[in-house]
Amino acid sequence: MEPFVLPIETLRRRRGIKWRRYADDVLPAWVAEMDFGVPDPVQRAIVELVEQQDYGYAGREGAECVEAAFAGRMRERFGWEPDPSRIQPVADLVQAILATILAFSQPGDDVVVQTPVYPPFLGSIDEAGRRRAVNPLLDDGARLVLDVDGLRSAAGDRARLLLLCNPHNPSGRALEREELLAIGRVAVERDLVIVSDEIHCDLVYPGHRHLPMGTMGEEIASRTVTINSATKGFNIPGLRCGVMHFGSDELLDRFRQAVPDRLLGGPGVVGIDATVAAWRWGQPWLDDVMVRLLANRDRVAAWVAEQAPAIRHHAPEATYLAWLDCGALRLPGASPQEFFLEEARVALGAGGDFGPGGEACVRLNFGTSARILEEILERMDGALRRLSA
Amino acid sequence: MEPFVLPIETLRRRRGIKWRRYADDVLPAWVAEMDFGVPDPVQRAIVELVEQQDYGYAGREGAECVEAAFAGRMRERFGWEPDPSRIQPVADLVQAILATILAFSQPGDDVVVQTPVYPPFLGSIDEAGRRRAVNPLLDDGARLVLDVDGLRSAAGDRARLLLLCNPHNPSGRALEREELLAIGRVAVERDLVIVSDEIHCDLVYPGHRHLPMGTMGEEIASRTVTINSATKGFNIPGLRCGVMHFGSDELLDRFRQAVPDRLLGGPGVVGIDATVAAWRWGQPWLDDVMVRLLANRDRVAAWVAEQAPAIRHHAPEATYLAWLDCGALRLPGASPQEFFLEEARVALGAGGDFGPGGEACVRLNFGTSARILEEILERMDGALRRLSA
Repeated sequence: MEPFVLPIETLRRRRGIKWRRYADDVLPAWVAEMDFGVPDPVQRAIVELVEQQDYGYAGREGAECVEAAFAGRMRERFGWEPDPSRIQPVADLVQAILATILAFSQPGDDVVVQTPVYPPFLGSIDEAGRRRAVNPLLDDGARLVLDVDGLRSAAGDRARLLLLCNPHNPSGRALEREELLAIGRVAVERDLVIVSDEIHCDLVYPGHRHLPMGTMGEEIASRTVTINSATKGFNIPGLRCGVMHFGSDELLDRFRQAVPDRLLGGPGVVGIDATVAAWRWGQPWLDDVMVRLLANRDRVAAWVAEQAPAIRHHAPEATYLAWLDCGALRLPGASPQEFFLEEARVALGAGGDFGPGGEACVRLNFGTSARILEEILERMDGALRRLSA
Repeated sequence: MEPFVLPIETLRRRRGIKWRRYADDVLPAWVAEMDFGVPDPVQRAIVELVEQQDYGYAGREGAECVEAAFAGRMRERFGWEPDPSRIQPVADLVQAILATILAFSQPGDDVVVQTPVYPPFLGSIDEAGRRRAVNPLLDDGARLVLDVDGLRSAAGDRARLLLLCNPHNPSGRALEREELLAIGRVAVERDLVIVSDEIHCDLVYPGHRHLPMGTMGEEIASRTVTINSATKGFNIPGLRCGVMHFGSDELLDRFRQAVPDRLLGGPGVVGIDATVAAWRWGQPWLDDVMVRLLANRDRVAAWVAEQAPAIRHHAPEATYLAWLDCGALRLPGASPQEFFLEEARVALGAGGDFGPGGEACVRLNFGTSARILEEILERMDGALRRLSA
């Protein structure tokens, strides 16, 4: 077993939502966290803090700050130079998305999204009283791609904001330069603020790469709010720490006018120290994890091809998420998610939550051990075989 | 040495703001956290989480939730029955104060405060573009007391909200029933929402008691937002977890309309588990701490009486904060805070930050060991003696 894989007995004792929401006989493959531990440097940073009982108000300085660690990592990994003075630490990325919607649009305005998409994008638009301007991704036979013409018509007169998820959840696309530039050009033409959620940037497979929206030229970068965190790549979502980076002083000023700094709360000392350690020293661990994830990704694709070819699936270019279109299976029950939960005792993400057109889909989280993934696929297999029997 | 007191060498290594903001030869007695560790049950809860590397999305249930732990503690300690369904967990209490100001008033409206007061009360009013309606507390010769007539005239036509800090920071008053009822009556007359910050409720000395605003009868309670956390009593401010309790469904609905749930971010797993452990099992530790704090409180009062009788000081009824009016000393320099920082190498809170009238004051945090407190007082003594020499 790889050193970062936790035994299933340990996982069953976890007190997080992933292993608790469903009954004990269900294997959870839904919410986007991995069944792994964390990098040693992250654990050491946490243990050091805990041993000192150093739980006072944060006073992190210089390289200990998330701002510096984020800027350093983006520079090193992606050749992007975020400005630390335009970074706002936050507790949570959904908070950041909602805050940008409130700051850069008014009730009744349109917010452009590509669907399917991470459900809180849609929920935040609704909650803020804005209107969804939906531009579905297109299946080109090999993967989901940006519909540039569709984007141009979705971004109408009432559009103020464009929400982008790249690498894309749930499709696993790592968008290419041409796609990002096309998005950027529409944003410039229509004077939209771009909110680019790049939280999966650390999870890109060989042959693909992550391109930050902040590297698409000044005209595009200056209107971009980039949202990121170490929570996906380094498996620390419960520690609640992330960043918002504003592409220009003007953008940051507009945000601050609408959303006072103190309203956002911000991360605690454990989240800060864990995040800094992850960004500075976590990559060797992540390299090992990516080997496991790549094998899992390929195993899911092979399973679909061999055992369930009626499922439409394109292997993801990034993320540990597999988007499975089960429409052709004509499964009984209210949704494929419910079918696999009831019949396979596997909890997947319900595609309908990801926007219109996702109803026949499920999202399978393969960020787990080979053994658990095999069990998940076997159970799904059994349910499908019983169905056709 | 008491078991909860940390050696000064350990404190000097702390990475929080208290021990880091000033030079190494300065003794910090400013920001409101204690130079102690935390209760054993709190530390055990954190260590257990850390050993499991259980850093996924929080899935706390039943008694593990902050809502239940808060309701249980308020019932047990103060005979108050908060409704867990009307509790909103938050990362930070300043966040909560600002959120209530935004939710229950409009730009240009008045927000009533009693001064001197915790500086973020004033800063939040300013930041939100509201107007301060200041009602200074009165010195009755024995303590600072509520000016009921002043309150009635401060709460004019444009007033929408009344911010209360009880037990009061920086005076250390634990307000009495008559004072709270007077505040409540004005709020009812003027149709004000009451925001009651009760974060120091665990730190009340013998002879006094904490009365939650939520126990002042339904008419008052139903218009009260209570803000609280385990961070002061149990010394975990860097873990960032607190609660807002809304006194009625109507109040909660109004808040939710203005401030979407997801905008607030909320606490992480370490903050949640530490807070729950503190509220459920931390009291024996706190009982020991209160013995130390009481001795320190009395030591500060005796020092003023014997060594610096020109300082006006009333021993606090709660909190580990001593409010020292140095006006009669006619200290040189820009402020008493700067005088003691430069001449005594002691960092105190600057009274001017607590609102008009506080300029001649300093706030001394005596939440430390007897030894460090002696050193603080000796240094202050020396500075004053050199001055008169």
